[in-house]
Amino acid sequence: MIPAPLPRPLIEPVLRRALEEDLGLAGDITSACVVPADHRSRFAIVARQAGVAAGLDCVELACALVDPAIRVTRDLADGAALRPGTRLAVLEGPSRSLMAAERTALNLLGHLSGIASVTARLVAAVQGTGVAVACTRKTTPGLRALEKYAVRAGGGMNHRYSLADAVLIKDNHIAITGGIRPALERARAGAGHMVKIEIEVDDLDQLEEVLAVGADAVLLDNMAPAMLRRAVAMVAGRMVTEASGGITPDSAAEIAATGVDLISAGWLTHSAGTLDIGLDVLAEG
Amino acid sequence: MIPAPLPRPLIEPVLRRALEEDLGLAGDITSACVVPADHRSRFAIVARQAGVAAGLDCVELACALVDPAIRVTRDLADGAALRPGTRLAVLEGPSRSLMAAERTALNLLGHLSGIASVTARLVAAVQGTGVAVACTRKTTPGLRALEKYAVRAGGGMNHRYSLADAVLIKDNHIAITGGIRPALERARAGAGHMVKIEIEVDDLDQLEEVLAVGADAVLLDNMAPAMLRRAVAMVAGRMVTEASGGITPDSAAEIAATGVDLISAGWLTHSAGTLDIGLDVLAEG
Amino acid sequence: MIPAPLPRPLIEPVLRRALEEDLGLAGDITSACVVPADHRSRFAIVARQAGVAAGLDCVELACALVDPAIRVTRDLADGAALRPGTRLAVLEGPSRSLMAAERTALNLLGHLSGIASVTARLVAAVQGTGVAVACTRKTTPGLRALEKYAVRAGGGMNHRYSLADAVLIKDNHIAITGGIRPALERARAGAGHMVKIEIEVDDLDQLEEVLAVGADAVLLDNMAPAMLRRAVAMVAGRMVTEASGGITPDSAAEIAATGVDLISAGWLTHSAGTLDIGLDVLAEG
Amino acid sequence: MIPAPLPRPLIEPVLRRALEEDLGLAGDITSACVVPADHRSRFAIVARQAGVAAGLDCVELACALVDPAIRVTRDLADGAALRPGTRLAVLEGPSRSLMAAERTALNLLGHLSGIASVTARLVAAVQGTGVAVACTRKTTPGLRALEKYAVRAGGGMNHRYSLADAVLIKDNHIAITGGIRPALERARAGAGHMVKIEIEVDDLDQLEEVLAVGADAVLLDNMAPAMLRRAVAMVAGRMVTEASGGITPDSAAEIAATGVDLISAGWLTHSAGTLDIGLDVLAEG
Amino acid sequence: MIPAPLPRPLIEPVLRRALEEDLGLAGDITSACVVPADHRSRFAIVARQAGVAAGLDCVELACALVDPAIRVTRDLADGAALRPGTRLAVLEGPSRSLMAAERTALNLLGHLSGIASVTARLVAAVQGTGVAVACTRKTTPGLRALEKYAVRAGGGMNHRYSLADAVLIKDNHIAITGGIRPALERARAGAGHMVKIEIEVDDLDQLEEVLAVGADAVLLDNMAPAMLRRAVAMVAGRMVTEASGGITPDSAAEIAATGVDLISAGWLTHSAGTLDIGLDVLAEG
Amino acid sequence: MIPAPLPRPLIEPVLRRALEEDLGLAGDITSACVVPADHRSRFAIVARQAGVAAGLDCVELACALVDPAIRVTRDLADGAALRPGTRLAVLEGPSRSLMAAERTALNLLGHLSGIASVTARLVAAVQGTGVAVACTRKTTPGLRALEKYAVRAGGGMNHRYSLADAVLIKDNHIAITGGIRPALERARAGAGHMVKIEIEVDDLDQLEEVLAVGADAVLLDNMAPAMLRRAVAMVAGRMVTEASGGITPDSAAEIAATGVDLISAGWLTHSAGTLDIGLDVLAEG
Repeated sequence: MIPAPLPRPLIEPVLRRALEEDLGLAGDITSACVVPADHRSRFAIVARQAGVAAGLDCVELACALVDPAIRVTRDLADGAALRPGTRLAVLEGPSRSLMAAERTALNLLGHLSGIASVTARLVAAVQGTGVAVACTRKTTPGLRALEKYAVRAGGGMNHRYSLADAVLIKDNHIAITGGIRPALERARAGAGHMVKIEIEVDDLDQLEEVLAVGADAVLLDNMAPAMLRRAVAMVAGRMVTEASGGITPDSAAEIAATGVDLISAGWLTHSAGTLDIGLDVLAEG
Repeated sequence: MIPAPLPRPLIEPVLRRALEEDLGLAGDITSACVVPADHRSRFAIVARQAGVAAGLDCVELACALVDPAIRVTRDLADGAALRPGTRLAVLEGPSRSLMAAERTALNLLGHLSGIASVTARLVAAVQGTGVAVACTRKTTPGLRALEKYAVRAGGGMNHRYSLADAVLIKDNHIAITGGIRPALERARAGAGHMVKIEIEVDDLDQLEEVLAVGADAVLLDNMAPAMLRRAVAMVAGRMVTEASGGITPDSAAEIAATGVDLISAGWLTHSAGTLDIGLDVLAEG
Repeated sequence: MIPAPLPRPLIEPVLRRALEEDLGLAGDITSACVVPADHRSRFAIVARQAGVAAGLDCVELACALVDPAIRVTRDLADGAALRPGTRLAVLEGPSRSLMAAERTALNLLGHLSGIASVTARLVAAVQGTGVAVACTRKTTPGLRALEKYAVRAGGGMNHRYSLADAVLIKDNHIAITGGIRPALERARAGAGHMVKIEIEVDDLDQLEEVLAVGADAVLLDNMAPAMLRRAVAMVAGRMVTEASGGITPDSAAEIAATGVDLISAGWLTHSAGTLDIGLDVLAEG
Repeated sequence: MIPAPLPRPLIEPVLRRALEEDLGLAGDITSACVVPADHRSRFAIVARQAGVAAGLDCVELACALVDPAIRVTRDLADGAALRPGTRLAVLEGPSRSLMAAERTALNLLGHLSGIASVTARLVAAVQGTGVAVACTRKTTPGLRALEKYAVRAGGGMNHRYSLADAVLIKDNHIAITGGIRPALERARAGAGHMVKIEIEVDDLDQLEEVLAVGADAVLLDNMAPAMLRRAVAMVAGRMVTEASGGITPDSAAEIAATGVDLISAGWLTHSAGTLDIGLDVLAEG
Repeated sequence: MIPAPLPRPLIEPVLRRALEEDLGLAGDITSACVVPADHRSRFAIVARQAGVAAGLDCVELACALVDPAIRVTRDLADGAALRPGTRLAVLEGPSRSLMAAERTALNLLGHLSGIASVTARLVAAVQGTGVAVACTRKTTPGLRALEKYAVRAGGGMNHRYSLADAVLIKDNHIAITGGIRPALERARAGAGHMVKIEIEVDDLDQLEEVLAVGADAVLLDNMAPAMLRRAVAMVAGRMVTEASGGITPDSAAEIAATGVDLISAGWLTHSAGTLDIGLDVLAEG
Repeated sequence: MIPAPLPRPLIEPVLRRALEEDLGLAGDITSACVVPADHRSRFAIVARQAGVAAGLDCVELACALVDPAIRVTRDLADGAALRPGTRLAVLEGPSRSLMAAERTALNLLGHLSGIASVTARLVAAVQGTGVAVACTRKTTPGLRALEKYAVRAGGGMNHRYSLADAVLIKDNHIAITGGIRPALERARAGAGHMVKIEIEVDDLDQLEEVLAVGADAVLLDNMAPAMLRRAVAMVAGRMVTEASGGITPDSAAEIAATGVDLISAGWLTHSAGTLDIGLDVLAEG
């Protein structure tokens, strides 16, 4: 699906840092040596692997920050399905500038498309069940806004963006507070009216306790399908049910069949791996 | 191996950004609701998976930036081998502060240890051959210094850090310049005396041309073992030989046996995936 | 009430900018001219006006950033009631350093205490009704995290922190979407499970429509007490009810008596004015 | 009056921070859910309250940073008088972009116009007396350049911008130095030739001492009109005379009539409150 | 003379940038290779050339930012006279850390001491005349606060810090305004009461015009000693007189003898050159 | 020679900082007072001194950051020879904007052209010998990328950019490691294959030891011409030979005649002094 684009003020600082990293204190010394100043090139950005595109705004902005004279023409939008050979965009401009922007652009495009692709795979695995797929806060430091965006491009949804925008009570919190009831009650008293409250449970006794107090969502941690099914029956629609822990593309369908509302997985963001996307020379001048 | 630590000015900005991401505009609202202000905890950082540690300085600095009252005691150093259950460090301090720092610390530790671990696996696959393992510039934007460090922690070595610190002439450069000879000659004329020059070749004819002009290193791109062996023989020690393209832990030994000096792989940094490392509660107060 | 402190990474950048503003390119040239380098002072921070304290962490950090040799001893915590003459803290250290930090510290302390104080006044006006008091996104650019914190110190609660952490459907959105039902349905389909959905209505017909679809909260905009009362009855506990628009300390009690769950006001943050807090010399050396 | 505009490098960082605050890690999720990607709007920025405009450059830059496709057409310039209903500008562009920029733009516009408006009111109160109205360093952290600008838009003038650009000797400095004479002498010896020296006095004896040594300006602190009149007579034009402390729009005329050169007030910047300015929908597409 | 130290918030950003420049993405790879991790060193910072010290706070902070374990012991303070062989400070700590901080520390110390030294030389050239020596805004981008400080360490005084803190009317302004009188009158009307006004004149006719209107200071541009003497006589103490343009250590005494109040020179900051200061090994461990 | 331009992301932060320094919190108050808002000017940038141009991109970007309405037309490119009176570029636009950008632009242009000019002088001194001229890491903090660029504009080459991109073993390292052989061996073992290794020697015995182990380059420190000649003979082309220490334009020819490959000098960057370049009014409007 085509996600709403991230506003430029959220991605520009990431790209400026990435370019500073790759340009060092001298820029691209190889091109400075071997590429004539007035040489121009056209490159196609082409998928070498099947997946889902995410990050074309980053490509365009990386090019613009290096040299406004680079023209980027897109063949498709973020969220589009890619097959080996699919062309995503064409870059055209001064060769030295293109080579200075290339790696930064491709690193980000590959990274985000990798996340979108594994998300799409998990979404496909549960297709037809009505179950949603969500990421977590296990993101790469500095890239959370972009990685959450990539999950959306892959058809997934987002969990909390940060510690500040929703309450998620975990086992440690319960232990510290002395039980599920006091934890939930304190959360309800302390959290604002625009803040949702979720709590993590490991077994059905805990779930019972949660149901007695109430919450917006419950995270059913590391439960086998049979137990998940009983949990869903107990909740009976009174809370959002989220299955988490050890879910793989292989196990997802069975877990989705238990009737939970969503499944979440940290590896969508922390272990997706890059999607192989490269540059092909179209023409030179 | 224990790599020389990165100086703090290189890692502090990464951590500040990561903490700002995760703390949002309100900090950890869950803990603010449910954890008493004076509650203290002790957590152990424990590997759930075998691998190699990298990122303990990041853990320590993340904690220090959130609250100098957190004490971090290390059980081992970056570069150490981990087995499921290996304790890496103990964190002790105010519970709210620990929970505010926890995810940022673990995200980075898992990410870097993941890179160190796959590097170590590739290094192990070629052990005894004298072949070195190197990463590339295909790193996660904003994390290059740390990811290159993690490669060192895994026993690998680093390729260029940026476009600015070495010359690497690729197929596009050769095409633009009109041939291997002019490309190498321009590079030698333009690059400083402290800058090494490497050139990428696809076949042995190109290698022949390179040998006629000379370079510090040659990247043998996507060559099968038989061709690599002939290439090594042709070079006869006059340049560093680097095999690259499609090398996997499975194919590495065979490639190493061809006699190349090093093998490089982008996936060490762009697709390592996280190493599973978690927190265990040790005690509460 | 004593709010959970903001983690230091959230307030340090604000203070660094404020100090750079006030120190210019030469620091405090008056003190450099007239105060001997080794002169030490003790100052008391004293309220000149009744209110509620907020911002003592900022005072302490401003001093620490200018000179770690300044010692700050607090007499009370954020959230404490102040009367004219109440001492909040004592600062002790090199006079030049104290004078360099003073205005930055007091500007922020007065600004945040002003917000905490008007919040506390509004909270007091509705005391006993069970109605909560909330701020909005009408904050001073660059200070939102701190101003939302000050509202908490005054006993209030927070609304959305940003456009990213909750859905609030306003009249413009309804007009664009073509009605309340499609707007709410799209929001429910698009927003994550940890995101609350609120919608603004101007009259009871709109409220009727909202009730037919459902939402987490409804903002009853600029309604007179009689209409608010009817709205509350219609909602009958199925959504959080928020009264907003033109609420003053004088009108608050009457509005609270209508049975709404909370009242919100932008002026808590955008027009509180500073609380008068000054420095008294305690001793010199 | 129309003030000289602040150069963009002074306001851009403020706006980038404000936008990052309001856009969080996901941008405007409400609009992403309910507003079609290609929907366009036209909004009028309209005063709801009488006052003076300040901050239109900020509105324009906030829009440009979010989306260069937004067009801003101004109806008037900063410094213009506003009545309820006065249109300040028209914004036209993609609806999602407009909604992402709206609150940031209005928060700053309202804040600065609030300052310009109270300044203009104080200027009006002393009109015809030739007395100037000045602000102080009691500004909102991070916004000093903009707030001082807003004072100029309201017809006021600026006092010191920072501790670094003028000498202002206060009671503490006098106490530390051991008297008015040594304080002034050290200031004159130490301050550069482009730096003005002002000193604060509480009574006429102190003023006598100041006159014996000389200064560029004297701050007559918290003096009643009668004493101010005698002070002005004593000074007899040899220094700029500034009345400060407890001046209100009501008392300003009487104080201005004493013949002082200027009156200054911290509340112009620290307690002005926002000016109510809103958005009206003009058309949609 | 010992100048008042710059507050740390003014110098820390300069040092962080400088360290990032010199540490690249990998830190000091030489030391990482050849220096054992636990090796400690003691270095003396020693002048190789006569001059005046400036920048010891920078040395100390550079070391602290790299590694708080480095101890810096000063032998003297900024402003002290140096002879070849004078020891300024001793650094002691982990060798790798010392080597990572060394160049950044010495580059800044040499640069600032160079400025202090040429300033002191010019001050010495006019000693006994009562004439002050001042720098200009011709400073190295990014280092103005530090370079102005170095001028103070050399016994000089500062001119304007920026375009914002004083009025200096130059020939272009006069041409645009249509004459000296309107330029001065507009400046007086527009500038705040804490802002000094200086005007540049090329000949005595212009000076006559200035005297008819009045200003705080006059810059006598590129005048020969005879004309300067007549200018001083005309001014007769009514304004500060500043000689500027082509003043060298050789010509300074003659110019000072004309009776001007101060002489200013851009080369104090833009062309001082470094002062040769090096590191001597004291001991190793 | 015309150097490859630095990518904009490397120079923009330098210019933003420089402009913030010079614009303070109020911008150019002189022009705000005396220059009408709609006045336009044309200025020529003209060399007052012979030398080599460097920094025209900085001029253009400084103007663009202050006001995109300024038009910059270049008469020549960086690397061009300048004589007194040579026009480098014409600036045209709103007078207030031009005056706000002028000093920042000229400070950087003069600084970088100064470096290019002394570099060109040293290059000229060794012309015909085939010897290259290189700078060092003795650069002005914050400006290394630009200063190294200026050296290239003057026809010189660059040494290491930072501690991270090449190994340079100095006397301290040798002492710590216990000798030249172990130092070189550790460096070879630890440094990546794209990293060159240079070692500093003081006499021919040390050089002998180096030759026995091998390195990429040798720095012959402070050797007299006779010893340099013998060193070159000993090396016999097996390493790059670099003469360093006390080389002046006067001594350069003699040193170049010894047959070394390059000479390096810190003063190219740390003590070049500015090149005198000024603004001439072309026309006003």
